[in-house]
Amino acid sequence: MNIYEEALKFHEDNKGKLEIISRVPVKDARDLSLAYTPGVAEPCKEIHKDKSKAYTYTRKWNTVAVVSDGTAVLGLGDIGPEASLPVMEGKSILFKEFGGVDAFPIVLDTKEVDEIVETVVRIAPGLGGINLEDISAPRCFEIEKKLKERLNIPVFHDDQHGTAIVVLAGLLNALKIVNKKLENSKVVVNGGGSAGTAITKLLLSTGVKDIVVCDINGALHKNTDFKNNAQKELANLTNPRNVSGTLAEVIKDTDIFIGVSAPNIVTKEMVMSMNKDAIIFAMANPTPEIFPDVAREAGARVVGTGRSDFPNQVNNVLAFPGIFRGALDVRASDINEDMKIAAAFAIANSVSEKDLCEDFVIPKSFDKDVQNKVSQAVREAAIKSGVATI
Amino acid sequence: MNIYEEALKFHEDNKGKLEIISRVPVKDARDLSLAYTPGVAEPCKEIHKDKSKAYTYTRKWNTVAVVSDGTAVLGLGDIGPEASLPVMEGKSILFKEFGGVDAFPIVLDTKEVDEIVETVVRIAPGLGGINLEDISAPRCFEIEKKLKERLNIPVFHDDQHGTAIVVLAGLLNALKIVNKKLENSKVVVNGGGSAGTAITKLLLSTGVKDIVVCDINGALHKNTDFKNNAQKELANLTNPRNVSGTLAEVIKDTDIFIGVSAPNIVTKEMVMSMNKDAIIFAMANPTPEIFPDVAREAGARVVGTGRSDFPNQVNNVLAFPGIFRGALDVRASDINEDMKIAAAFAIANSVSEKDLCEDFVIPKSFDKDVQNKVSQAVREAAIKSGVATI
Repeated sequence: MNIYEEALKFHEDNKGKLEIISRVPVKDARDLSLAYTPGVAEPCKEIHKDKSKAYTYTRKWNTVAVVSDGTAVLGLGDIGPEASLPVMEGKSILFKEFGGVDAFPIVLDTKEVDEIVETVVRIAPGLGGINLEDISAPRCFEIEKKLKERLNIPVFHDDQHGTAIVVLAGLLNALKIVNKKLENSKVVVNGGGSAGTAITKLLLSTGVKDIVVCDINGALHKNTDFKNNAQKELANLTNPRNVSGTLAEVIKDTDIFIGVSAPNIVTKEMVMSMNKDAIIFAMANPTPEIFPDVAREAGARVVGTGRSDFPNQVNNVLAFPGIFRGALDVRASDINEDMKIAAAFAIANSVSEKDLCEDFVIPKSFDKDVQNKVSQAVREAAIKSGVATI
Repeated sequence: MNIYEEALKFHEDNKGKLEIISRVPVKDARDLSLAYTPGVAEPCKEIHKDKSKAYTYTRKWNTVAVVSDGTAVLGLGDIGPEASLPVMEGKSILFKEFGGVDAFPIVLDTKEVDEIVETVVRIAPGLGGINLEDISAPRCFEIEKKLKERLNIPVFHDDQHGTAIVVLAGLLNALKIVNKKLENSKVVVNGGGSAGTAITKLLLSTGVKDIVVCDINGALHKNTDFKNNAQKELANLTNPRNVSGTLAEVIKDTDIFIGVSAPNIVTKEMVMSMNKDAIIFAMANPTPEIFPDVAREAGARVVGTGRSDFPNQVNNVLAFPGIFRGALDVRASDINEDMKIAAAFAIANSVSEKDLCEDFVIPKSFDKDVQNKVSQAVREAAIKSGVATI
């Protein structure tokens, strides 16, 4: 049985990957009188007097909804809410196993931006946070933005920011190895969707100056024929030298290539045209933009992909559980730029000096110590940046 | 510490009464390749081809949302969604402990009927059923009706039907003791809200012919100045003798009194004016319409309340877990009248002939055997009435 057949059987045999359990005994009338009537009236009354007491007397403090409309699931695209459920269940159990967060799927029978926003706002009172997942660009930008405006709990689209944070972490370490600075590096990002946009913005926040975004039509510049506002905004934030042309043209003499696009797009020649000690994160999955061995042969110094069978796997699980853990622990009203950057540094610093080398710039996904470092850094950043509420 | 102080501390100490756990290991890359990428793509693809496969490959088959807007919580009334959370968590753990159902709270930041309906419809794809809870009348009738029309999963307002089913069960057994028939009995229901309406309709479905509903203004009849459509509909379904007047007046010469109203409303004199071997279910909580000892002294033969410290406790936990268990097991598209009546008979028949007596017409809440009988009866009724889909 190959992995796919095995996974199908696995899902059928387990009849779902998560369940809800009681944290308290419910064995007799006494148990019930505390957990249910009449005793339960007391916390209800306290919360009625002060809504914030919901964090004290219920599970709201630790509960995150994993929200999707199923429009951008894995490499499968728009497969709808029901079909997205196995991924959302998987995400939820990773939240619990890695971050101790109680997460459950909410998959939506609508694709309208305003309907998605309204629905999430309406179900928010019992939730401590919202993780948006597998919602296609450019709608995901507007949905996240509107939810962040409307809600006072953290809202985070992992496909955007989780990827960006782990990429930044890998870059921070890779730059140490090649002895370059972020602010002096020329960066090309191939792919202007959720991940590409978020990576670009995070790198700009962290000090990158020279970054060019490419899509299938080549480099985005001020005179690109924009498909939508998101793309226009991206173009205005990037490409200070106003270069134009294909990926092959604009990748010349750059230091860093980040791919969140499609398989086999980057050739040996393109890598050879990059600056010495090039850094490459080729995250198209399952087939990257270029395979690591090919990139290394062509002169790249540090190479990462999205795959677990190559070194330097960019895996969002290094970020989202610890980020929400940290945010929830200080009841942060938001997951802001400071917290994201803090998370990236924490992930990077989880690789010890002793271990740091070309093939080890990103911690292993199963290094549970990373979560603790991340959540601690995020807590501190939340407090420092004034969004912690306890 | 009294029970209320203890319950408050209990809620604070436990930091929430439920949590989400993984049903599968997530220890290493191999585990992840089955539960998450790349293996998880397979069930996604299967469900994309056939939505009903969500029942096979995810937890949808067993998942019920406990939905409230917090407008009718316990005896506290409209306290809002956050303040309703302790009750909704309690309900959820009862679903799990008694029925094996994975239930979680969804508390809503809106009270508009159409917004509530839209929200629930939009989050339905990942759910196997909806339990509406603590939503005030008359909005609850319209909400439940619209959701039953729009969804093909069971939708059930427990405050209405759970109470009605357990009352019916108690009545069936009480009538055996006093040797009377439902269709020959004169019934008074005091309280025309959620529970009173549902009890009345269920009794009519089961064969009661002579039933009068009273509210604070007295008996509902055809010329009552109706507050709303729900009340008007109720009046048109009931009171065949077109009686009018106060509770004291219309309770004369009746066989059965059902109270879902307010404390101390029923006097000894009223009970004495009822027919011989009167049956009384006085469910105002915590203080019933009349205390059992007082009612028995005045001549009532069988008396039940909502309290656990008196005999014959009408407790919805005897009904809703087994009902949903049965409905989910046959993937019923609805919880219909046949299934509700079947549940009532199953609850009634859980009291053995040997045990049946005036003080034992309703099984004990913690008799877990009742759930099995109820779920079995509901499964069979679903199949027989054509709403089972597997």
